[in-house]
Amino acid sequence: MDVVVISIGEELLQGRILDTNANFISGELLKLGLPVNKRFTIGDKAGELTTLVNQIQSSSRLIICCGGLGPTVDDRVRAELAEVCGQQLIAVAEHHQDVLQKQAMIPELAKALRNRRGTAWGFACQLSKATWVISLPGPPVECRNTFLDGGGRDICRSLAQSCANAFGVFHTAGLPESKIERALGDLLDRPNLQIGINASPLQVSVSVLTQSRPGEISAEHLLEKTAAELKQCLGELLWGRDQQSLERVVVAELMRQEHSVATAESCTGGLVAAALTSVAGASQVFGHGWTTYSNHAKQSQLNVSDELIERYGAVSAECATAMAVGARQGANTDWAVAATGIAGPSGGTEDKPVGLVYIGVAGPSCAYAVRRRQAARSGRLVVQQQTVRDCLDALRRELLGLSCLPERP
Amino acid sequence: MDVVVISIGEELLQGRILDTNANFISGELLKLGLPVNKRFTIGDKAGELTTLVNQIQSSSRLIICCGGLGPTVDDRVRAELAEVCGQQLIAVAEHHQDVLQKQAMIPELAKALRNRRGTAWGFACQLSKATWVISLPGPPVECRNTFLDGGGRDICRSLAQSCANAFGVFHTAGLPESKIERALGDLLDRPNLQIGINASPLQVSVSVLTQSRPGEISAEHLLEKTAAELKQCLGELLWGRDQQSLERVVVAELMRQEHSVATAESCTGGLVAAALTSVAGASQVFGHGWTTYSNHAKQSQLNVSDELIERYGAVSAECATAMAVGARQGANTDWAVAATGIAGPSGGTEDKPVGLVYIGVAGPSCAYAVRRRQAARSGRLVVQQQTVRDCLDALRRELLGLSCLPERP
Repeated sequence: MDVVVISIGEELLQGRILDTNANFISGELLKLGLPVNKRFTIGDKAGELTTLVNQIQSSSRLIICCGGLGPTVDDRVRAELAEVCGQQLIAVAEHHQDVLQKQAMIPELAKALRNRRGTAWGFACQLSKATWVISLPGPPVECRNTFLDGGGRDICRSLAQSCANAFGVFHTAGLPESKIERALGDLLDRPNLQIGINASPLQVSVSVLTQSRPGEISAEHLLEKTAAELKQCLGELLWGRDQQSLERVVVAELMRQEHSVATAESCTGGLVAAALTSVAGASQVFGHGWTTYSNHAKQSQLNVSDELIERYGAVSAECATAMAVGARQGANTDWAVAATGIAGPSGGTEDKPVGLVYIGVAGPSCAYAVRRRQAARSGRLVVQQQTVRDCLDALRRELLGLSCLPERP
Repeated sequence: MDVVVISIGEELLQGRILDTNANFISGELLKLGLPVNKRFTIGDKAGELTTLVNQIQSSSRLIICCGGLGPTVDDRVRAELAEVCGQQLIAVAEHHQDVLQKQAMIPELAKALRNRRGTAWGFACQLSKATWVISLPGPPVECRNTFLDGGGRDICRSLAQSCANAFGVFHTAGLPESKIERALGDLLDRPNLQIGINASPLQVSVSVLTQSRPGEISAEHLLEKTAAELKQCLGELLWGRDQQSLERVVVAELMRQEHSVATAESCTGGLVAAALTSVAGASQVFGHGWTTYSNHAKQSQLNVSDELIERYGAVSAECATAMAVGARQGANTDWAVAATGIAGPSGGTEDKPVGLVYIGVAGPSCAYAVRRRQAARSGRLVVQQQTVRDCLDALRRELLGLSCLPERP
């Protein structure tokens, strides 16, 4: 009997938005020991969902639908699933506004799934003795909230009686995918581990799925044993696990040490400051950031001298160091990080090609810069994101007393 | 007859990687006037693809498979599709290495699709008189290359000749999804238009797919006619179309007028500056940005007086206006935008709840702030993104001489 995810929306079929919900649900169900067998993406024309659900119902034990619960006329999921179940729609809550009332209707025998991030309720109901269907809203934050906190996951967990899987993701920065793979060595060939390596501009992550067989150690235990081995293989490259982000690790460490940081950005245009302030409570450790995109701004705001820029250029180790020092002084903080480089697509020269960046660091007893070459072929945004990652990683390494971020020349 | 995309791979079903291929193919086919009707994601167990293709063959005219063409034992797509077509596998190229030879085998009557980014060949063949199947490699760069440059798209284009579709997406800011729907009125009910409305924190977009029938006006002509009607319905809410982004529209307009802008950010933490600098060439119009997260930074960097903050608070129209004025003076620019507010999740009060933000604007002959209430329940990042959108939209409206960004109290 299959576990199935159905994503609903013309915008998906038109390639206008990436389907992150199906991915999220797949990962969550895997953790519960309910691996997904099939995924479908359909549009929102009348009858499409009904036809599909009727086709797959007898071979499925769990069907999770994402999308189509909103207020507009093409949001038909409530009505179609109620019809398939042979139930009336009833109100979970009373509203004066039609738009809100429509989004609070669920099949009469369904369990309501609260959505604390939006106005559309989700629901879960039985299609037959053997088949459950769960309907979640489409906007990603709402889909996640309704599943995790609204009760969707609890229902799935109860369906997943005998779970013998465990899953973890381990995050690294500093080296490319191929080198991380080499560092893992024979871990990749163990029979009861499934290891995947996944690279994004922000990190290279190693995913581990463990399975326990009767008479062997539990999946959770094996996962923790593997986590310890990963720590040995990866050393200071490893910065976090599962839901952690590099910015959260850095902000938490600053808080723990009661240290503060300032930012001085050229090629990243404010993204390092934005990464820090994406962490709730970051105001305890971060107050000042400068986006000094022009040379004049570097000079007037950060005291980078005209002579320095004239001699070494704005994209140089000297300028990155001076920007960090200027930001640390101007904001009166313990630390400052700076980034200057050539994000592209144009502006590169033979000496200073697109993708070349310098990360500046200034601290209680240091002021230096590291040269890095980012993936210029992948475009401007990727160069910027990799530079944000490097700024945060350089700071993490300083805070934890590790070696400096290595050059990538 | 359906157009179908099948994505193949356990790593997709496990939620370990996002399926960007299906999204890419969907967008490309739409441009050719071959909108995708359904997408499937399946694993790589023996027989799975065969079963699915046999099920959908009679109702499909084009099936595009992504993945499963690699060298390992679980890459079964070549063999299974050859079997479904009733053909033998033959070699497109001779290799000494088994691993390479396996990836150069295609069904005997298939057309080979060259992959210049990897070692796996793609192919296209007819399953029946009415049905084509195209098989593309899974790694995203290889999938794109094999489709675009290897001949996949040409085959799709020849299949699309009899079709007559046109497609456009129109972007708005300023009003929520439900109000945009109301503004569209009877456009939503026209028989030869498919209109969709899609909301993200950055914009509300209206997608239009037109179809021409024999003897009627062409699909392109109908699309442009609809575009004109949308302009009438939506007025100054409409800011762009298709691949345009609000930041590109704003930067282009600043360039055209030879005007410059500075940013002063509190709750957005640098995201407005980052949005502007995401546009290549933004250095012509943007040089200085401040992230003044603390009150001290607002005072020391932007000259917002302590008395003002004491009397009105940092989240106030007065403070937003003073931040914009201070940034405009400090950077000596024509314009400045500022944002101050409560991004949450904590920090809200009854008077000043999470999601309340003020957008400050200073220009050659104006200095004011607009109060906005963002979707607090959707979380910190959405509040920040909506605020970035509002800053850019406020500036767009000033630059084009439109009315101010409306309050949303």
